[in-house]
Amino acid sequence: MTPSNLSPTDRRRLDELYERLGACSARNVGYPTNQAFDYSELFRFLEFSINNVGDPFHSTNYRLNTMEFEREVLADFARFTQAPADEWWGYVTSGGTEGNMYGLYVARELFPEGICYFSEDTHYSVAKVLRLQHTRNIMIKSQPDGQMDYTDLRETLRIHRDVPPILFANIGTTMKGAVDDLGKIRAILEDLAIPNAYIHADAALSGMILPFVDEPQPWNFADGADSISISGHKMLGSPVPCGVVLARKAHVDRIARSIEYIGALDTTIAGSRSAFSPLLLWHRLRTLGEEGLRGMVQACLGNAAYAVEQLRAQGIDAWCHRNSVTVVFPKPPPVMMEKWIIAPRKNIGHLIVMPHVTRAVIDAFVTDYAAALKS
Amino acid sequence: MTPSNLSPTDRRRLDELYERLGACSARNVGYPTNQAFDYSELFRFLEFSINNVGDPFHSTNYRLNTMEFEREVLADFARFTQAPADEWWGYVTSGGTEGNMYGLYVARELFPEGICYFSEDTHYSVAKVLRLQHTRNIMIKSQPDGQMDYTDLRETLRIHRDVPPILFANIGTTMKGAVDDLGKIRAILEDLAIPNAYIHADAALSGMILPFVDEPQPWNFADGADSISISGHKMLGSPVPCGVVLARKAHVDRIARSIEYIGALDTTIAGSRSAFSPLLLWHRLRTLGEEGLRGMVQACLGNAAYAVEQLRAQGIDAWCHRNSVTVVFPKPPPVMMEKWIIAPRKNIGHLIVMPHVTRAVIDAFVTDYAAALKS
Repeated sequence: MTPSNLSPTDRRRLDELYERLGACSARNVGYPTNQAFDYSELFRFLEFSINNVGDPFHSTNYRLNTMEFEREVLADFARFTQAPADEWWGYVTSGGTEGNMYGLYVARELFPEGICYFSEDTHYSVAKVLRLQHTRNIMIKSQPDGQMDYTDLRETLRIHRDVPPILFANIGTTMKGAVDDLGKIRAILEDLAIPNAYIHADAALSGMILPFVDEPQPWNFADGADSISISGHKMLGSPVPCGVVLARKAHVDRIARSIEYIGALDTTIAGSRSAFSPLLLWHRLRTLGEEGLRGMVQACLGNAAYAVEQLRAQGIDAWCHRNSVTVVFPKPPPVMMEKWIIAPRKNIGHLIVMPHVTRAVIDAFVTDYAAALKS
Repeated sequence: MTPSNLSPTDRRRLDELYERLGACSARNVGYPTNQAFDYSELFRFLEFSINNVGDPFHSTNYRLNTMEFEREVLADFARFTQAPADEWWGYVTSGGTEGNMYGLYVARELFPEGICYFSEDTHYSVAKVLRLQHTRNIMIKSQPDGQMDYTDLRETLRIHRDVPPILFANIGTTMKGAVDDLGKIRAILEDLAIPNAYIHADAALSGMILPFVDEPQPWNFADGADSISISGHKMLGSPVPCGVVLARKAHVDRIARSIEYIGALDTTIAGSRSAFSPLLLWHRLRTLGEEGLRGMVQACLGNAAYAVEQLRAQGIDAWCHRNSVTVVFPKPPPVMMEKWIIAPRKNIGHLIVMPHVTRAVIDAFVTDYAAALKS
């Protein structure tokens, strides 16, 4: 570390920040961020003004890039999502919002008059993106468990059969970890004889869980998705928000033509893109390996089941979806929110059982929760 | 550095990447990225899963954030852009595209039927954003020096006086460093008695030059801008793309109401946002200080003038705008592009005289250029 001419006061403030973040991390149990990472061998790349501007599969004049590594990351994600061989395209994004924006942008370009359907359990950023893109949209009711209400979806699609639907599917909702079933959605489309439809899968968290379980719900390209967005800072873990978006190549090629028409040179949304994030993802995938990822995910699922058991043993009505690490329970008393970093909404709270949420952490949480209920 | 279980092959690939980037950096003279930085004392913050999700001026449940530092960065930029006291809002973005997208989004929300006007020298990403947002738009001719053709602007505005205009002004064009004059634009609006208009300033590069010169062109909030986007990885320098967007608070408050109506909880575009980028900007501003920034900018301007002189001395028709570090010349022979990283377009090329483009680098470049012309 090179000493800079930062003032002693400023240096102390950074030290205090470092301490505060360290103290917070141990109590951070309500957000889907895997904190168990060590990227120190990549820090040296922050000496350079690196930038993966534009399409990772095109050549670029800006040679200070890591696109070779980015393409390897994308190939791994294509395998995880069962993307059709040589028929996919994608890039590393700045996070889930950009991935969802990209999928919805592709959909809107294909079906300019299309209506987007999304459940009421969908993350609020999606409504924001739809408004920004001026895309017509209808919110569909959710089931109590967080899945889309397929009956409401069917009825709503039925009365709008003249307009191509854009289905926004949650592959792991924010609050309950529910997976919208692409099989059921496709069955409804077929049953209503709707030939033109687009399905975007927001697999922010579960997109790195479902590839590593034995019986995943239908969620990926093989199950009919047209584009999929997955976060990098969630199940994989990263100090900066990042993610991957993948889409069927045929759709992207149509966008590329319209982009060319308006004189824009690339088909990513961001333009200048971090060249550091692809290195983080690459490092993570290479150091864990596919078996390591499976082991990590299985351990989290096991610990989530343990958390449900322990909470129930204290009379707390906890539950968890199949293949999910999101343990849902009634909103804990306010005193719990002072000590633990959780994200309650309306009348529920949740633990997201990431690798740093060990059985010891779960035990401490359950003990505090039970004590808070008694007092 | 903690050794990981990366394979020897993978470790070697990282080493090769590191070497390649180091070799490229010295020849990187055609892009507006300041490479002269050292952020090593911030690397330790990459141990944490930090995230500045949402509005930097609101409290957040996610306590692993650096929003306190972000607000200080924003306050500095507000001063640099002469934002009206207590009447501005902003956030640290993932780069210029997000900043421009934000400004154009605010404009479109204020004037849903508005037409956006931008010059043909505007960066291609702007057409992409306008298409994504479904905003009506008209491209205005440019003058040969890269500025907007104000006569064309006036004529085009005149025949669309029934629709509120959204002016997209380049504060330093990509290729020629030209500044669209906000004074002239406002005079045209006044002359045509157009009361409702929105001006967004894309000050990606020059937004960190013009605050530090004695006679800046009219470009900022005091000159009538409604929002301004400035890149962090350009004049300041950063290993990852980032930037700042600022807007008049009254406009943002109107957006906030519409965001609340659709149930979205924050007014940033990205949602999850890097908490590391604000630290980089904060560190840069604190270590350089305002006098340091002025000195850096003045040195670059001096070296740009030197480059023009040296190129002209070799019979090369080079020129540079006032208050610009972008030295324009005829597109060099192909052999030059093998050695130097420059970004030619159509029949011109340019040097962007950043701090690492020293007089020694300029001399080597001019010598090579002259030799290439002779052979």
